Amino acid sequence: MTETRTLDNDLFLRALKREPVDRTPVWMMRQAGRYLPEYRASRAKAGDFMSLCRNPELCCEVTMQPLERYGLDAAILFSDILTIPDAMGLGLEFKQGEGPVFERPLRDARAIENLGIPDPETDLRYVMDAVRTIRGALGNRLPLIGFSGSPWTLATYMVEGAGGSDFSLIKRMAYDSPEMLDTLLAKLSASVSLYLDAQVRAGADALMIFDTWGGVLAPADYLQFSLEPMARIVEHLKRVAPQIPVILFTKNGGQHLEVMAQTGCDALGVDWTIDLATARARVGDRVALQGNLDPTVLLAQPARIEAAVARVLESYGHGNGHIFNLGHGILQQTPPEHAAAMVEAVRALSPTYHAQE
Amino acid sequence: MTETRTLDNDLFLRALKREPVDRTPVWMMRQAGRYLPEYRASRAKAGDFMSLCRNPELCCEVTMQPLERYGLDAAILFSDILTIPDAMGLGLEFKQGEGPVFERPLRDARAIENLGIPDPETDLRYVMDAVRTIRGALGNRLPLIGFSGSPWTLATYMVEGAGGSDFSLIKRMAYDSPEMLDTLLAKLSASVSLYLDAQVRAGADALMIFDTWGGVLAPADYLQFSLEPMARIVEHLKRVAPQIPVILFTKNGGQHLEVMAQTGCDALGVDWTIDLATARARVGDRVALQGNLDPTVLLAQPARIEAAVARVLESYGHGNGHIFNLGHGILQQTPPEHAAAMVEAVRALSPTYHAQE
Repeated sequence: MTETRTLDNDLFLRALKREPVDRTPVWMMRQAGRYLPEYRASRAKAGDFMSLCRNPELCCEVTMQPLERYGLDAAILFSDILTIPDAMGLGLEFKQGEGPVFERPLRDARAIENLGIPDPETDLRYVMDAVRTIRGALGNRLPLIGFSGSPWTLATYMVEGAGGSDFSLIKRMAYDSPEMLDTLLAKLSASVSLYLDAQVRAGADALMIFDTWGGVLAPADYLQFSLEPMARIVEHLKRVAPQIPVILFTKNGGQHLEVMAQTGCDALGVDWTIDLATARARVGDRVALQGNLDPTVLLAQPARIEAAVARVLESYGHGNGHIFNLGHGILQQTPPEHAAAMVEAVRALSPTYHAQE
Repeated sequence: MTETRTLDNDLFLRALKREPVDRTPVWMMRQAGRYLPEYRASRAKAGDFMSLCRNPELCCEVTMQPLERYGLDAAILFSDILTIPDAMGLGLEFKQGEGPVFERPLRDARAIENLGIPDPETDLRYVMDAVRTIRGALGNRLPLIGFSGSPWTLATYMVEGAGGSDFSLIKRMAYDSPEMLDTLLAKLSASVSLYLDAQVRAGADALMIFDTWGGVLAPADYLQFSLEPMARIVEHLKRVAPQIPVILFTKNGGQHLEVMAQTGCDALGVDWTIDLATARARVGDRVALQGNLDPTVLLAQPARIEAAVARVLESYGHGNGHIFNLGHGILQQTPPEHAAAMVEAVRALSPTYHAQE
């Protein structure tokens, strides 16, 4: 699967390479999710969330749902960012109303020393099977995005034990025992590199690294603990799968776009707290940009959604290298027809930005 | 109280005006708080949190505690940012482990139309009495900072009803009913203007506006809903109390420093997600800067704290206009002696940055 695949719709892959397209491609972070009644039905069949993630057929089913409903320009593997820590033995649970919780969070050097590097095709076989199943169902219609959490983001959950924290445990580790954190991040970088490489071999056409929590760090700490491990992964991927575009997304990372663009990645995801015009001026033509509608806009009336889509398109402006997306995952309370209004607005309004190219 | 007061320690006020000082002044956001055992004792005497806020003698007692312990360069009124919405009749409660909750959040145009503008000396008399009591206890030793939440930040709590949300209710109001939100923000701007002006008349020497949630907005929405109402307040204050320095602090507002500096305020608070060197280069000599140590650094060992203080001082560099502070409120789990290590490091390391001026 390492040759370039010929796809019926390659808008997304062309935009990632900043090649000409006749309209702006669009997909939505967390597009397969609880806002869709058909997703909730599939989820009910699976039981709990991780049982859904571990079932390749159901993963495929929910991955396809938003494509069928909206005609999006990319599929994204349905999975969770915490599969790697789970495979490392930390005991992932999703508690009602609390989000992910680890039974055995990392609290000392020995726990970190004892962590192994998961083998994707054995320890994370269910993810690779999901990629293969989805690839089979998609055929050559659309590109499939594989993904992982960033090492720093995975480490925050593994050390804190749960989301929603003030990050005091992992930051204290960063300050008082940086060598412990470096060991952890090195293991996670190796694990994520293998995991993403395996997703490519299983059929992924592009990769995205979600750095949900890089934005909570001071700039020097961001460079050391969040960006550097991601850069190592990009370097690995560019060696083993140079044809596969890689997207980096640091939530609240608007201040770091220049250094992110220097990693060798192909595109940056940007949240809504920065204008695309500003972002584009800062990264020049080094990378494509993916974003950046505030997901809460999809709670507004369709006329407002269309106006907001128009502003995002105008902010990026004319030319290539824009993938339309939300600035973060779609909210659970989003009316599905509002997502349709967004997609239709992108289709209707974006061709003018690609004329005469 | 509108003439300039002569203070024994005027480092803080001089730094706000970017005048020469022989060392960098230092105080800590939320310096009177639960990390101090003496605060917990005072709080226990009061009963619940709002009873503490409503008791001028106890407010004075807890305001003085960190000054006595650390020899800080400014006192800050002990109060809460939600006193104005409470005075407007929304029914503020602090639920155990949940933070502030309003019994009657704003959910329709009528509720907003019905809101009155609180009169500080009657409806918020307990705050003004606290300012006067603290002023009396301080004498002319140290400057006293008065404060308020920003209109946008107050509005988020008033519409959402509680903290920790995804801001979907207020953002939906911003998109679908901007005129409703404008009405609310206009009332809050008027209320905050009167409230801060009254704090000056009661004895405050400087003012700070806490915009905790401005950073969740897209840039155009930030300008309209967060910055513009703050700018109106600054304009009012500069008319009625031109000698009083005003500090604006938008958490996660690192991308907006230039426009914040153009409001006519005297200083910007900055959180730790931006280097002071970058911030200073961007605002030039228009405003002083206050910050920006990550509060989690105070959980680390004292040697690490000293190194981190050194980096913040070096990042601002030589010259005037820096007030050392944390980038957000001190964390509850901070060992009090770690805060002492920070203050001592600022005292020991900062004079070199002010030599030969």
